[in-house]
Amino acid sequence: MSKHLLSIDDLEKKDVENIIELSFSMLEILSRDIKKVPTLRGKSVGLIFFEPSTRTRVSFEIAAKTLSADTVNLSEKGSSVEKGESLLDTIKTITALGVDFLVIRHRAEGFPHIVAKISGIPTINAGDGKNEHPTQALLDLFTMLTRKKLRKVDDLKGATISIVGDILHSRVARSGIKLFSKIGMNVILVSSHTTLPKGIEKLGNGNIKIKTQFDDEFFKSDFVMALRLQKERHGNFYFPSDREYNEIWGLDENVMTKLKEKNKDVVIMHPGPMNIGVEINSEVAYSENSAIFEQVRNGVATRMAILYYLFSHLQKIS
Amino acid sequence: MSKHLLSIDDLEKKDVENIIELSFSMLEILSRDIKKVPTLRGKSVGLIFFEPSTRTRVSFEIAAKTLSADTVNLSEKGSSVEKGESLLDTIKTITALGVDFLVIRHRAEGFPHIVAKISGIPTINAGDGKNEHPTQALLDLFTMLTRKKLRKVDDLKGATISIVGDILHSRVARSGIKLFSKIGMNVILVSSHTTLPKGIEKLGNGNIKIKTQFDDEFFKSDFVMALRLQKERHGNFYFPSDREYNEIWGLDENVMTKLKEKNKDVVIMHPGPMNIGVEINSEVAYSENSAIFEQVRNGVATRMAILYYLFSHLQKIS
Amino acid sequence: MSKHLLSIDDLEKKDVENIIELSFSMLEILSRDIKKVPTLRGKSVGLIFFEPSTRTRVSFEIAAKTLSADTVNLSEKGSSVEKGESLLDTIKTITALGVDFLVIRHRAEGFPHIVAKISGIPTINAGDGKNEHPTQALLDLFTMLTRKKLRKVDDLKGATISIVGDILHSRVARSGIKLFSKIGMNVILVSSHTTLPKGIEKLGNGNIKIKTQFDDEFFKSDFVMALRLQKERHGNFYFPSDREYNEIWGLDENVMTKLKEKNKDVVIMHPGPMNIGVEINSEVAYSENSAIFEQVRNGVATRMAILYYLFSHLQKIS
Repeated sequence: MSKHLLSIDDLEKKDVENIIELSFSMLEILSRDIKKVPTLRGKSVGLIFFEPSTRTRVSFEIAAKTLSADTVNLSEKGSSVEKGESLLDTIKTITALGVDFLVIRHRAEGFPHIVAKISGIPTINAGDGKNEHPTQALLDLFTMLTRKKLRKVDDLKGATISIVGDILHSRVARSGIKLFSKIGMNVILVSSHTTLPKGIEKLGNGNIKIKTQFDDEFFKSDFVMALRLQKERHGNFYFPSDREYNEIWGLDENVMTKLKEKNKDVVIMHPGPMNIGVEINSEVAYSENSAIFEQVRNGVATRMAILYYLFSHLQKIS
Repeated sequence: MSKHLLSIDDLEKKDVENIIELSFSMLEILSRDIKKVPTLRGKSVGLIFFEPSTRTRVSFEIAAKTLSADTVNLSEKGSSVEKGESLLDTIKTITALGVDFLVIRHRAEGFPHIVAKISGIPTINAGDGKNEHPTQALLDLFTMLTRKKLRKVDDLKGATISIVGDILHSRVARSGIKLFSKIGMNVILVSSHTTLPKGIEKLGNGNIKIKTQFDDEFFKSDFVMALRLQKERHGNFYFPSDREYNEIWGLDENVMTKLKEKNKDVVIMHPGPMNIGVEINSEVAYSENSAIFEQVRNGVATRMAILYYLFSHLQKIS
Repeated sequence: MSKHLLSIDDLEKKDVENIIELSFSMLEILSRDIKKVPTLRGKSVGLIFFEPSTRTRVSFEIAAKTLSADTVNLSEKGSSVEKGESLLDTIKTITALGVDFLVIRHRAEGFPHIVAKISGIPTINAGDGKNEHPTQALLDLFTMLTRKKLRKVDDLKGATISIVGDILHSRVARSGIKLFSKIGMNVILVSSHTTLPKGIEKLGNGNIKIKTQFDDEFFKSDFVMALRLQKERHGNFYFPSDREYNEIWGLDENVMTKLKEKNKDVVIMHPGPMNIGVEINSEVAYSENSAIFEQVRNGVATRMAILYYLFSHLQKIS
């Protein structure tokens, strides 16, 4: 593994197994009465979010603090970017200030890769445009295990996850497809033709199927992940209306009934924030089959695991 | 007492006495050279402020950190609320992220009650619209004691506090009236007819008097609290002009002279931020009789007490 | 020395020597594996930035946290200043909340002096309009030493620094001129007539020279500091265009070649954020002779030194 986590491509299967194993340990720490270990004492993590975020930013902040690291928040507002500083100079500045890790979200695809190269310090991609969001894919994988009471990545081999919705604009989908197929899961994509990137099936190892509507194979899924309709990225030109989107690709009570007929323990996931009534309806999002807020909880553990993994990797090479 | 502090109604008189007693201990900690105790180490406090705030937000932040808790700030700007996430999902997300306490300010009356119910973790109302602001009332009570060099809540029985101004829009007034009358103080409200909520006197135990202008009974008050004219809530439709408001209900030098004639140690209070020259004039706000910045200082101690009280209560029931 | 750092005028030469000596110690701490010392445990630092800032705000935040102090951020947005609170009341409030140090940036010249007087707690000027930015001058001085592998302030006696550009609007220049001439350096100012404040040479001890363009004496400089063209302060009325400014006062490859002919180890500095292509070109800013990001790194050490110096000074007088 490289010293950064920019893409699922950076991870060997062994890395995935290690991070998942660590996530279980971190989850145990988070269940303690005093949620604090001294692992990263005297280290600092720069949280650079140039797009709005609640769960990812706060998740990393709590993960870092639980490991006793200090955090520094930086957003576009109130920073020198407002005075016209180039982003690269901002990155060089943050690096020179002596942070030990960079967590970066930016609307431009590939920007975290440039940051990693320029800064030379361990850099984590917390979402770059519609490209990748690798920590989300890892926490999703971890959640499939916790939900099914499994411990090993290999235990998910042959299981099926369906990813539904606007694949084209979804960094969550891209990272997920890569990761889930890498560990031998079957991946079904259900999406409109207009939101299916060409050649998307090549991201996997021949275990990706594409559908434009729900069918029997879909209804047999072990896991179903609804994607956020990314209106903020495309101004909703790809679908006639929210209602139409909901009718065709929305996870509503009707879809849920059919899913549970085939598999009563089907697990519903969503990376959040949800557009309730668009890609998912409230009866599904808040149902017993939903793991949506378990994903959030697990995200803290997985991000602790990732920070720790990058840190221990660094220790080894230094 | 419930596990939350949402309203003064949540507090038995015994709870008030305990919180005040704890506030004295916390004030002692704050006077130490090293202002840090390990009480809440490994716990985290989510500070969710959906309205601007300096004193309340920073007060809670310092209170939490002095008790060794970590804090996470969340405002509307930069959060997923900007992307259209529902407030309830934001709350569920913050809860799933594993914070141990929620401190919430929101423009909607009753919102903290919903938060408490949904999150299930100890929730403190830091101001909900024009409904309540219970931690302000508690710090005001504590300040009356410190200012008068008293120790016990019962020492204030029979003392008189006058609350002056825009009662209708004041959450500070509502919480104050409930708390001060609960412990046996006499409460005088001085307000325009247009800013007096109907039935407001029922909040007390028959010890509330209503006046529309200053009179002899008012001038004999032990404590006088000016309220902030909440222009941001009502666009100033309730009074002809700031100047007229100041002439009739403003605490100016003339009012001060008459107050001191009756009671040279009268204590002037204001929850802040002040509109100087409107509800209070600078000669009064910065006079020796003013406890306004002592209220701010005491706020940190009272909020430490409240966090600690909710925490120890939780320990007992778990 | 006074208990505040508001202006270079507050510092005796002995103070400068002490702060520089401490900066070397702090730089050593920052190079450790665990960058944390308990010096300011239980103290808190209020970071009040009423102008955008990346490097100065984060620099102080990391400096404070490395010394184990807690920090509280306050900006105009989201604070009571938005509700119309006077700045002085905001300052009194922050002080009453119990912070131990104030670091303040504000567009109004002299505002930190008022803050220091009102608050009574150690106050550091982090930039007031176009007046002063003393911590920047100190870190610049420290960087000249680290870059030249010197240890003592006196080792720079007789060396020459040229400051180039918009002197009139530059608080960095004003603090720098005072500090560098105080310790016996020669200071050359290169600036348009329109951006040269009258009587600026009186800030030094007869060791300031003024030029309107680059000449032989300038090319022999040991250090050259480009100033940021402060468009946000004056709307660019002082120069016909960015391009013309760049042609006459910009540090480009041509100027660099001539500087290196006279002195191959000339050190290029800039306080940041840079307008690349205006006051400095990229071939110069990112060259081997540039100390620009070393300035940033050193800033953390110098600010730790300043916090510590004010703190130990306070211990002595209390």
